[in-house]
Amino acid sequence: MYKYIFNHITYVNLHFNFTTMYRSHHCGELRATDINEEVTLAGWVQKSRDKGFIVWVDLRDRYGITQLVFDEERTSKDMMKQAQTLGREFVIQVKGTVIERASKNPNMATGDIEILVSELNILNKAILPPFTIEDETDGGEELRMKYRYLDIRRNPVKNSLIFRHKVTQEVRNYLSREGFIEVETPYLIKSTPEGARDFVVPSRMNEGEFYALPQSPQTFKQLLMVGGMDKYFQIVKCFRDEDLRADRQPEFTQIDCEMAFIEQEDILNAFEGLTRHLLKEINGVEIDKFPRIQYDDAMRLYGNDKPDIRFGMEFGELNEVAQHKDFSVFNNAELVVGIAVPGGNSYTRKEIDKLIDWVKRPQIGALGMVYCRCNEDGSFKSSVDKFYDQDDLAKWSEVTGAKPGDLICVLSGDTNKVRTQLSALRMELAERLGLRKPNEFAPLWVMDFPLLEWDEETKRYHAMHHPFTSPKPGQIELLKTDPGAVKANAYDLVLNGNEIGGGSIRIHDKATQSLMFDYLGFTEEEAKAQFGFLMDAFQYGAPPHGGLAFGLDRLVAILGGQETIRDFIAFPKNNSGRDVMIDAPAPINEEQLEELSLKLNLKS
Amino acid sequence: MYKYIFNHITYVNLHFNFTTMYRSHHCGELRATDINEEVTLAGWVQKSRDKGFIVWVDLRDRYGITQLVFDEERTSKDMMKQAQTLGREFVIQVKGTVIERASKNPNMATGDIEILVSELNILNKAILPPFTIEDETDGGEELRMKYRYLDIRRNPVKNSLIFRHKVTQEVRNYLSREGFIEVETPYLIKSTPEGARDFVVPSRMNEGEFYALPQSPQTFKQLLMVGGMDKYFQIVKCFRDEDLRADRQPEFTQIDCEMAFIEQEDILNAFEGLTRHLLKEINGVEIDKFPRIQYDDAMRLYGNDKPDIRFGMEFGELNEVAQHKDFSVFNNAELVVGIAVPGGNSYTRKEIDKLIDWVKRPQIGALGMVYCRCNEDGSFKSSVDKFYDQDDLAKWSEVTGAKPGDLICVLSGDTNKVRTQLSALRMELAERLGLRKPNEFAPLWVMDFPLLEWDEETKRYHAMHHPFTSPKPGQIELLKTDPGAVKANAYDLVLNGNEIGGGSIRIHDKATQSLMFDYLGFTEEEAKAQFGFLMDAFQYGAPPHGGLAFGLDRLVAILGGQETIRDFIAFPKNNSGRDVMIDAPAPINEEQLEELSLKLNLKS
Repeated sequence: MYKYIFNHITYVNLHFNFTTMYRSHHCGELRATDINEEVTLAGWVQKSRDKGFIVWVDLRDRYGITQLVFDEERTSKDMMKQAQTLGREFVIQVKGTVIERASKNPNMATGDIEILVSELNILNKAILPPFTIEDETDGGEELRMKYRYLDIRRNPVKNSLIFRHKVTQEVRNYLSREGFIEVETPYLIKSTPEGARDFVVPSRMNEGEFYALPQSPQTFKQLLMVGGMDKYFQIVKCFRDEDLRADRQPEFTQIDCEMAFIEQEDILNAFEGLTRHLLKEINGVEIDKFPRIQYDDAMRLYGNDKPDIRFGMEFGELNEVAQHKDFSVFNNAELVVGIAVPGGNSYTRKEIDKLIDWVKRPQIGALGMVYCRCNEDGSFKSSVDKFYDQDDLAKWSEVTGAKPGDLICVLSGDTNKVRTQLSALRMELAERLGLRKPNEFAPLWVMDFPLLEWDEETKRYHAMHHPFTSPKPGQIELLKTDPGAVKANAYDLVLNGNEIGGGSIRIHDKATQSLMFDYLGFTEEEAKAQFGFLMDAFQYGAPPHGGLAFGLDRLVAILGGQETIRDFIAFPKNNSGRDVMIDAPAPINEEQLEELSLKLNLKS
Repeated sequence: MYKYIFNHITYVNLHFNFTTMYRSHHCGELRATDINEEVTLAGWVQKSRDKGFIVWVDLRDRYGITQLVFDEERTSKDMMKQAQTLGREFVIQVKGTVIERASKNPNMATGDIEILVSELNILNKAILPPFTIEDETDGGEELRMKYRYLDIRRNPVKNSLIFRHKVTQEVRNYLSREGFIEVETPYLIKSTPEGARDFVVPSRMNEGEFYALPQSPQTFKQLLMVGGMDKYFQIVKCFRDEDLRADRQPEFTQIDCEMAFIEQEDILNAFEGLTRHLLKEINGVEIDKFPRIQYDDAMRLYGNDKPDIRFGMEFGELNEVAQHKDFSVFNNAELVVGIAVPGGNSYTRKEIDKLIDWVKRPQIGALGMVYCRCNEDGSFKSSVDKFYDQDDLAKWSEVTGAKPGDLICVLSGDTNKVRTQLSALRMELAERLGLRKPNEFAPLWVMDFPLLEWDEETKRYHAMHHPFTSPKPGQIELLKTDPGAVKANAYDLVLNGNEIGGGSIRIHDKATQSLMFDYLGFTEEEAKAQFGFLMDAFQYGAPPHGGLAFGLDRLVAILGGQETIRDFIAFPKNNSGRDVMIDAPAPINEEQLEELSLKLNLKS
């Protein structure tokens, strides 16, 4: 996997000037053509092999590894002794001559040569690292985070960070060429009512008052549009103080974009262009027009608003063909839905039972699973043969698109729940079947999201995207009668089953925005206190505008062929939001609290 | 001044695709060659002139202004009426034909043509703006900040933001080409003991604990060097909760850089290269090797560690030639020091008296000023002729480099105070004489800063740069006997009298770093609690390293020929650290405080 990334970072122009007072060349540079050159190198001891009469040392820096050699015949006794003391991760500088290597290593860029050392300076000693500094390490995740500065020495992490740099440079240069201006918006802003998950920052100069860290620069980018900035972007940190799922961070990076005088089609074209450019430049993959799918269809066909379309396995809804027989489980279900698993008929009974156990785990929560084997001879064998004959099952295979040799898996129940369950099963099986290929890329626009979503907890509709999203033209009246049915000018960009970006066309007039706040349960006063500045701004001539934000951490990980984001973040936090390296957060002292006019009010 | 900036933003490639569903061309684009074209434009009404039978409207967008025309003969009555209702800052879309203008305007890029409108859509109305949206506005600073989105529509602010984008793009591309990797360091870090000015962030998930926002990513960039990243940079927001001087912001942006396996000379070369590149690309100014000056010499010759060397007026120390006469004021002074004001002999007595009043203002605090006129005939006339004859004064003119026609201004007193006073006078006079030309650029390295500075308040030495700065080789022993005399491997880059960057070679071994913390009055426990992770890191093989950080806000302002930074910040805060547009900071509600386990503890 890492190899894959590594192939693509050859972009780094190694012809820049890295010569410093400490080195004439870097450790990935010397070749057979350099033989007899006098050189100076500096770096870390990757490993050393001491045969008594000869010592080889692998010297490592950011750019590669070069082999050093000391031997009885050509090296002074003192230096020989010193060379024998060199431990792993010592920092040294050597001068010497490039010589031909006796046993060449074709797997190393510098494998044809070695350096016969004439001068050795130990710049810094090193104690034994808590885990091995190798591509495959023996360090666990928490240990590697605590000593992140050592983890970064490992190729997989180092190359991921370099890869991230390349992606962000490509993004910035592409958008700049397209006329976008990067504008820095403030980090010390104001807490908002949906800001339950805002990080707040007490102000010393303004007693009893707090800034908030932005969850996104949403209102500021809209104000830039009101200000005529026309095409804006920013690669910017955002903050959310929420209970962290395994692969979330309290601080994360967005590529935030906004355009004025546009319709939805303009936005889609602009950022499809960016994504296409990245796939081409970074991954060497050329993709023409990105497919689009309606949100409703995505839910129907994949049970998911971010479907992975690298493989088929689309849902087949079986209500028509599987209900009204004698099988009450199906008859009582809101939805009966199945997928065809390619080649799944080869599963043993035991394997299928395991699959049934898998969907019944609490994380998935299905009550059971019906299956149907599609035999090579065109016959079927299902777990519910009692209720369904061959003709019935043939219809199942038709609806799910199953071919001879496949296995049809069927779940039933409440529409929303069963879709989520079958979606999980679909992804799990695709993973097992090796259908989620990291170097295959399938982007997809998911269109026309609902404007609102029902929140069971507060028994209220909430904005699905955010309260600045515009409803589809002509649908605003529906808000009164059937709010859940109102669709928004909102879209997500999905790549390989991950949402990598999302955005919307915004409301740009005060009246509609007031109406929205009203529908969302804000009092006039609340709306004014929190977003008065935005509605004021709309009065002074706001242009039609809209935008999109990419999640950079995830985008980079996916382009790098990975699913987890941590290796692409230099100093990540753990699942409790802690930086275990610097041990933050931490208590602050009494004077600091006093100066901020605060007191602790601990629950425990 | 703004014209100057404007000249340099022509870089913006206006050939990108700005055609959207709302427009076929932008408002700065159409020329005589486009006559007879059918076009669609969108933008804001800059102004309109209604002659009854004809209406002209200036339509503005980010790219320029195009004149629209409606007239009785060719425009329908309804549209004519509608055109007459268009107020300033209305947002409109028009379709029409490009026609030749009767009275051409050579001062406008689009001055040869106008658009005969065939279709007019009002996209949004606008109420009267609180100040005029013109290059010269009638709005005061506070009002412009409150309605910043309107201020951004004005060319001076808009172009400053575009200019900032250009500079940052140049910086990123230059450093990337040179092999630097941009790495994002965390914003939620840990408060430090010198962190009295840290903004802190309470953590909901870690009760009673706080993150701090970084004053700079100092320790993280050092850890990246320990991690082998070799050449790092980041354009990054930093935060300081301090009483704000007129031209400071609680959040500001740094170009933060660090390199490993380097000596001071490598750093100077690398970032002199960057600055030279910016001056050339942005300002069209080619500058060869930057001059260097010792900190001690800068203080002696300019009374200032960031001297403006665009003009001479170097200090001449007069102790030797002016003391030991009968003038007790000079005899009792630690330092007698003067400057020659070019052409200053033309000042009237009244003007000189005003100058004397100026240095006696409390902000400057001099007790008086002695002067000496250098007549064209080679004779001198001083305010202390009683004590000094022509030969004495001839020596003054020699020491200060005064020529016939100049005026020598002399101050005396305690060395530090009098240097600061004379430096202020020098800058004031240069300003008045027009010697501080905004389109002339004089960079300067100030070298070998003291390691420590004495703090009168705490009666202790503090690190002048920060506690990670290395002392000059061989000087660490001096810390015990004469701490104030120890020089550091620290340097500032000064441009036109402003510090635009500063940095140092760092300590990279645990023993020296411990010693430094010890000298700075940290107990071993405190040092460990706060910087244990850094000293731990040094044990695992830290390379020699050092770096530099530029203040981006100021750098951009100076390259743009300005002295104040606010126009180069999209949404600046006022002198109380408030964002008057969104009204932040603001109180948060009880539930939020409760969730954070905090209580207010107001002093008032």
